[in-house]
Amino acid sequence: MPEFRQNIATKEWVIIAPERAKRPEDFKKKKVAKEFPEYDKNCPFCIGNEDKTPPSVYSIKKNGKWNLRVVPNKFAALKSDLSPKRKREGKSKRYLTIDGFGLAEVVIETSVHNKTIATMNYSEVRNVIKAYKQRYIEISKNEDIRLITIFRNHGAMAGTSLEHPHSQIIATPVVPPHVRDQIFQARVACDTFGTCIYCDMIKQELSEKKRIIVETDHFVAFSPYAARSPFETRIIPKRHDCSFDAITEKEIDNFSKVLRDTLRKIYLTLDNPDYNYIIRSSPTDERNTKHYHWYAVIIPKLTTPAGFEIGTGIYINVTPPEESARFLRQAKI
Amino acid sequence: MPEFRQNIATKEWVIIAPERAKRPEDFKKKKVAKEFPEYDKNCPFCIGNEDKTPPSVYSIKKNGKWNLRVVPNKFAALKSDLSPKRKREGKSKRYLTIDGFGLAEVVIETSVHNKTIATMNYSEVRNVIKAYKQRYIEISKNEDIRLITIFRNHGAMAGTSLEHPHSQIIATPVVPPHVRDQIFQARVACDTFGTCIYCDMIKQELSEKKRIIVETDHFVAFSPYAARSPFETRIIPKRHDCSFDAITEKEIDNFSKVLRDTLRKIYLTLDNPDYNYIIRSSPTDERNTKHYHWYAVIIPKLTTPAGFEIGTGIYINVTPPEESARFLRQAKI
Repeated sequence: MPEFRQNIATKEWVIIAPERAKRPEDFKKKKVAKEFPEYDKNCPFCIGNEDKTPPSVYSIKKNGKWNLRVVPNKFAALKSDLSPKRKREGKSKRYLTIDGFGLAEVVIETSVHNKTIATMNYSEVRNVIKAYKQRYIEISKNEDIRLITIFRNHGAMAGTSLEHPHSQIIATPVVPPHVRDQIFQARVACDTFGTCIYCDMIKQELSEKKRIIVETDHFVAFSPYAARSPFETRIIPKRHDCSFDAITEKEIDNFSKVLRDTLRKIYLTLDNPDYNYIIRSSPTDERNTKHYHWYAVIIPKLTTPAGFEIGTGIYINVTPPEESARFLRQAKI
Repeated sequence: MPEFRQNIATKEWVIIAPERAKRPEDFKKKKVAKEFPEYDKNCPFCIGNEDKTPPSVYSIKKNGKWNLRVVPNKFAALKSDLSPKRKREGKSKRYLTIDGFGLAEVVIETSVHNKTIATMNYSEVRNVIKAYKQRYIEISKNEDIRLITIFRNHGAMAGTSLEHPHSQIIATPVVPPHVRDQIFQARVACDTFGTCIYCDMIKQELSEKKRIIVETDHFVAFSPYAARSPFETRIIPKRHDCSFDAITEKEIDNFSKVLRDTLRKIYLTLDNPDYNYIIRSSPTDERNTKHYHWYAVIIPKLTTPAGFEIGTGIYINVTPPEESARFLRQAKI
């Protein structure tokens, strides 16, 4: 029987349609995954091509060679030398606009062309998380920035054409409704129940166990009750904090492990699917908010949102999250 | 220079990034569009295969043969014989669920296998709109239904694998946040300015002209100021009404024309791209709301939303809507 489920954190509805239930085999890519070389002389992110990107704003080096570089995005949709001032446009002055002010950086995660988080070792992933944190702290010093979004696009269906392993950081002068609404719902829940909705969610999930994928000392990776798509996975820190940059050294170790292991399970179970992941943190000027909680979400690109999803925001998910979690939990890595 | 623009109806932000501006040629499909046959004996929607679908709930016939059929969706994600009652789930009873109650119908738009709205004549499109209206009226009599969404998925990237021309109607017992938020913003605007935000928008667009694609006696088709993606097109009726089923006979003629002509311009300019369109109408139990306004939106699938879009709801649009509108306005049909 199909059912509606409500995401308690956002109040969004999804339809879980198990009659169409799909197993990992149904999603495996038909085409053979390309085998990329370790080094590609035409890749702007490979060693020797450092002049094809702007200079690094952060790097991790070993024995005189770089292991990781963060560079401003050469093809950035936003630029740091513009004004964040709101302006009114059109005859009625009702339309609102801002020059495209913002920061856009690329985290070149390793010098090795053909790795991805799923195939890195823990210390390589640790470098990536450490870079996220350092850049987050640095960028949040800019008083005109309100929101910092860290994300990774893996594969063409996830919106990237560059093979070389990389993530992105985009900082904007606006907090969009999509994020505001989540924070508002978290505040309503906190006003109602006196507790953090994300803390409540992981407590609930840990007690029920059936949607848990990986648990470590400091993190829980699980398929959310109201997952919008097959194998959507949330990673939530057990320690309550609204902002990603509060992550401690121990938590960085732990987060590297849970992120690597979860992505490796997805990689092996679903044959290296395209995916996006996003780290959602509170607005930078609400750094001390008590009712919000940072998290990461991984979205494998296995299905196509159609007119119904676009028109209603209600996603039809053909794989119950209990099934997704079971497959990933059991996957040997 | 890139710029942020806010959608006045939803308060969503987009980034218009003209430095990456793309012209229609950049989007044209590399692969040659498949030429489908007029009739396919294996297609469940072709003549002679009526037993492969549930019986029609509505049809338009001529000379004893059907031209259009509406049938319940055989593979519906929602079922009409379930209960719309909310239930609480999980140990904490915080998770909310509803059995998958709802209606899902397929509008088989013509018996001819290889047509699409862009290649139909006006009277064929008129049949489709008439069917939408009749089914909308019939479905809205169900007291447990709150929202009726009419949509069309064209092509694999838009989420359909069936070639035969068809649209869908899905009726749900819930009004999701995605729709509630729009209505809320329309109410705030109405409280503030005393007028309908959609009426204001088309007034503004008609006075500026630069984003207009097609104007008829009763409708305006335009690229919205804060379009989320290249060639996104909105069609808004000039007469203020919140509900699609209020469409008059004259307006049906007019809507058929503007929908056909706009889709034909997209078809010819962009080489038959995949697209979704959605008709958004007020919740059925808010049929007399004064501050909302029904509309249609066409979204050609030309770009891929990535981690930034998913994580923030801020879309990066590489074609300024003024450019999209100019290309479509000038397209000969």
